[in-house]
Amino acid sequence: MQDKRGLLIVVSGPSGAGKGTILAHTIESYPTLKYSVSVTTRNPRKGEIEGVNYYFKTLEEFETMLNQNEFLEYQKVYDNYYGTPFSKVNEQLNQGFDVVLEIDVKGALEVKNKYPDAVMIFISPAKRETIEERLRGRSTESEEQLKIRTNSAIEEIKQAVFYDYIVVNEDVHQGAMDIIAIIEAEKCKVKNNKKFIDNLIYGGK
Amino acid sequence: MQDKRGLLIVVSGPSGAGKGTILAHTIESYPTLKYSVSVTTRNPRKGEIEGVNYYFKTLEEFETMLNQNEFLEYQKVYDNYYGTPFSKVNEQLNQGFDVVLEIDVKGALEVKNKYPDAVMIFISPAKRETIEERLRGRSTESEEQLKIRTNSAIEEIKQAVFYDYIVVNEDVHQGAMDIIAIIEAEKCKVKNNKKFIDNLIYGGK
Repeated sequence: MQDKRGLLIVVSGPSGAGKGTILAHTIESYPTLKYSVSVTTRNPRKGEIEGVNYYFKTLEEFETMLNQNEFLEYQKVYDNYYGTPFSKVNEQLNQGFDVVLEIDVKGALEVKNKYPDAVMIFISPAKRETIEERLRGRSTESEEQLKIRTNSAIEEIKQAVFYDYIVVNEDVHQGAMDIIAIIEAEKCKVKNNKKFIDNLIYGGK
Repeated sequence: MQDKRGLLIVVSGPSGAGKGTILAHTIESYPTLKYSVSVTTRNPRKGEIEGVNYYFKTLEEFETMLNQNEFLEYQKVYDNYYGTPFSKVNEQLNQGFDVVLEIDVKGALEVKNKYPDAVMIFISPAKRETIEERLRGRSTESEEQLKIRTNSAIEEIKQAVFYDYIVVNEDVHQGAMDIIAIIEAEKCKVKNNKKFIDNLIYGGK
């Protein structure tokens, strides 16, 4: 019953928290939820489709968009730029889709600043020990490097206080259900139903 | 995973919105959710059990509690007083139960004032016409009286802006599912998980 426009959902969390898995499961279970499609300057890989995986742009085109303040956030990874194009996200929101951005804390705070209605979700491991275990599981780094990466993940968890919600990844299904509950609850927020309430009070459609 | 204390849920809505039915269905489906038990000065009816349906008190006892500021809210209905005893609600919250109060807008705003963490839910009919239909269905009042009651329900809907959430009663099951989503989402709120986050960052149990 909410006003038709969709929600912008921002998801962050430390490396090893299982964000990607939880989000994939959530999107599978919740038909109106879609990933945003980023703009990038990197070359398409085999099988990647323009407008589905990315919008592929030249560096010059990207810089023009940047100068015209067209990104909700952007970042440089090695030699390539990646950005979230506001106009495209806005189009999806206007069509009634909920759009999810999986980005780091810095990018997330940028988005919140430009789009204050964004719903901010932090995905966290259930236990301190899980962070180290998962990082250990996926790399062949030295103990020293592992410690640095673990500490950096814990530093990232300190930023959780800037988010609206924390979803704990103890179980992928439960994590996805929590995200869906958050979206459903946000759709019941009074601030997202002003038109509906006005119509009840004053009539109209 | 939330910090153990339960949530205080305040539910209001105009006459004919179907609050009672939705709440009964919600409580049946959500084991940690309980009604608060009110204190009243009215006499017990047949089958009513002290501490289950109400806490039965004399007028003198009620006034003592009132003077000691023991009520989250209270009201006088005809010759009887009804009040929500904070100490009892607090006990349930500390045991990890979520407690629901079904009260009018005036009482709800009193509760929010005394207990700012209360989650405020307004239950609304889906359409303007439903209000009149339901009021018409349950009474044999004159057209004039019906109009007064319909207008009073619409006046009440104007107060929805003071609530956090609006749940639309188009379907009882969906309404109950919305309330459960709201509770689950609130349990994911960062502000309700401060201890958990601190434990992740600094260790401890």
